[in-house]
Amino acid sequence: MRRIFVLALIVLTIVPLIHSQDAPKTIAERLGYPRDAKLLIVHADDLGMAHSINAATMKAFETGLVNSGSIMVPCPWLSEIATYARANPQADLGLHLTLTSEWTSLRWRPVTPSDRVKSLLDKDGYFHLTETEAASSADPKEVELEITAQIERARALGIQPTHLDSHMGTLYQNKALFEVFLRVARNQKLPVRVARTWFGRTDFLPVTLAPDDVYIDRTLDINPSVAPNDWGKFYSDALAKLEPGVTEVVIHLAYDDAEMRAATIDHPNWGAAWRQRDFEFFTSDAFRKVLQENQIKLITWREVGKLVK
Amino acid sequence: MRRIFVLALIVLTIVPLIHSQDAPKTIAERLGYPRDAKLLIVHADDLGMAHSINAATMKAFETGLVNSGSIMVPCPWLSEIATYARANPQADLGLHLTLTSEWTSLRWRPVTPSDRVKSLLDKDGYFHLTETEAASSADPKEVELEITAQIERARALGIQPTHLDSHMGTLYQNKALFEVFLRVARNQKLPVRVARTWFGRTDFLPVTLAPDDVYIDRTLDINPSVAPNDWGKFYSDALAKLEPGVTEVVIHLAYDDAEMRAATIDHPNWGAAWRQRDFEFFTSDAFRKVLQENQIKLITWREVGKLVK
Repeated sequence: MRRIFVLALIVLTIVPLIHSQDAPKTIAERLGYPRDAKLLIVHADDLGMAHSINAATMKAFETGLVNSGSIMVPCPWLSEIATYARANPQADLGLHLTLTSEWTSLRWRPVTPSDRVKSLLDKDGYFHLTETEAASSADPKEVELEITAQIERARALGIQPTHLDSHMGTLYQNKALFEVFLRVARNQKLPVRVARTWFGRTDFLPVTLAPDDVYIDRTLDINPSVAPNDWGKFYSDALAKLEPGVTEVVIHLAYDDAEMRAATIDHPNWGAAWRQRDFEFFTSDAFRKVLQENQIKLITWREVGKLVK
Repeated sequence: MRRIFVLALIVLTIVPLIHSQDAPKTIAERLGYPRDAKLLIVHADDLGMAHSINAATMKAFETGLVNSGSIMVPCPWLSEIATYARANPQADLGLHLTLTSEWTSLRWRPVTPSDRVKSLLDKDGYFHLTETEAASSADPKEVELEITAQIERARALGIQPTHLDSHMGTLYQNKALFEVFLRVARNQKLPVRVARTWFGRTDFLPVTLAPDDVYIDRTLDINPSVAPNDWGKFYSDALAKLEPGVTEVVIHLAYDDAEMRAATIDHPNWGAAWRQRDFEFFTSDAFRKVLQENQIKLITWREVGKLVK
């Protein structure tokens, strides 16, 4: 009888340990959800860049269907979105750390004194136009100065960022930049946009992350191969097939208006009409229905950030 | 007979000299126009600040009724108006030297590395909100650095400025700033917005100007006491009474659209509707008729600038 008791004790103690070694807790489980829960962050990029983007995103936040976004500190309309952030401290707003100025009629510059971050500048004194130019020219020390300054500037304006990501993915372009990004994020105790499904894309991503770093399962975004008429179908189909775990759908909201058309002139990809289509789908009853029908639960970076030690 | 001839010669030689000493040539005469000519520069301020301003002003230029403008180099839409300047080298475009960032949702910063022009910055790292704060804080040496940098930046982008003026009049706020402004303008061999009728406003203006400096006779601008319905009447009446000489009518064009309303939020003065009213009057047949009926001839700063030695 006593042996059986001891055996039972051993089994009860060891089996869960073995089980947890076989299948470590998923991020969903660490967040307190079942392993098969489908969790979605609906995230609007590029806040602060233009009024049209701010206005459409603030409108979309009202529906509750878009529940997260990130802000570009060097951009001209920062002050408008900072006012919103101060008035809506519950809003899930992060920083869209910015090292590129990709449009041709509307441009922006670093917040650091420009002579201290020369490697980040193009010949006109703005950030480089593309993420590849930006990444190949950037001195990682200057990147660290600049992204730290962006975070400090945001905090000084009363923005309490819940997460960090990288405009046009510049900070994921090479190991040195990604290391800077992670170091700054760890210092700030903020989660970064990194997904497990990206690990195959580059050698450095999985090896640079430490066991304590928090990352989500996957991101989902539309691309220029999708025809405008298939916009809603692309998202609905992707969400109907959504796998369990934490997914961030990365979207770009704005109105197809004069400001946005001029800002994105000659660039239909991620242009004004593109952003209007994103706005329409993600504020629609169709999107709400897809969420309901597929038992998709919306979560935010604020929740994910609680796992950051 | 011979005496009469000599006397006549003396009279014919001396009298015009006496006359020209009594009445030195007016700027109209120096420009080759009769003394009683009514000459008008129709000048749109604030180019580069917002797409709405650029778009409305470029549209107004097409009518020929608005024939001059000035550009704010630190502002986000500089690149769009620089593209226009390069494509329209005949356009009469000057620089609206900028030391204030007066709106609350849309803001801008110096082009000089910020740690070298700290006296120009507010607590958020932008230019000060008002011209009085800007002028009282500004170190004239830093002002010289910044306005020179603005001119160099404009030239580097292919803008060939025909004149200089000062956004919100900051550079006319005190003698030290006005001296910097004049020194930079003289070095650049560019005319500045100064009018003879301003001489009574401050002690320093007439004494700072040198005999070689070129200035116009007067400026004309509308003010917040004019009711929106009286907009056209105000300008038409003022132009019907226009005195001879060179007048600059200083106007602010934009569309009353979402971008401009957000940019000027809570500030009806010089706001979106104000600028739409200016656009409507200065592109109207009514304005064209007033010019014709009052024999008012349009000239540009490019012409005035030819007098600068």
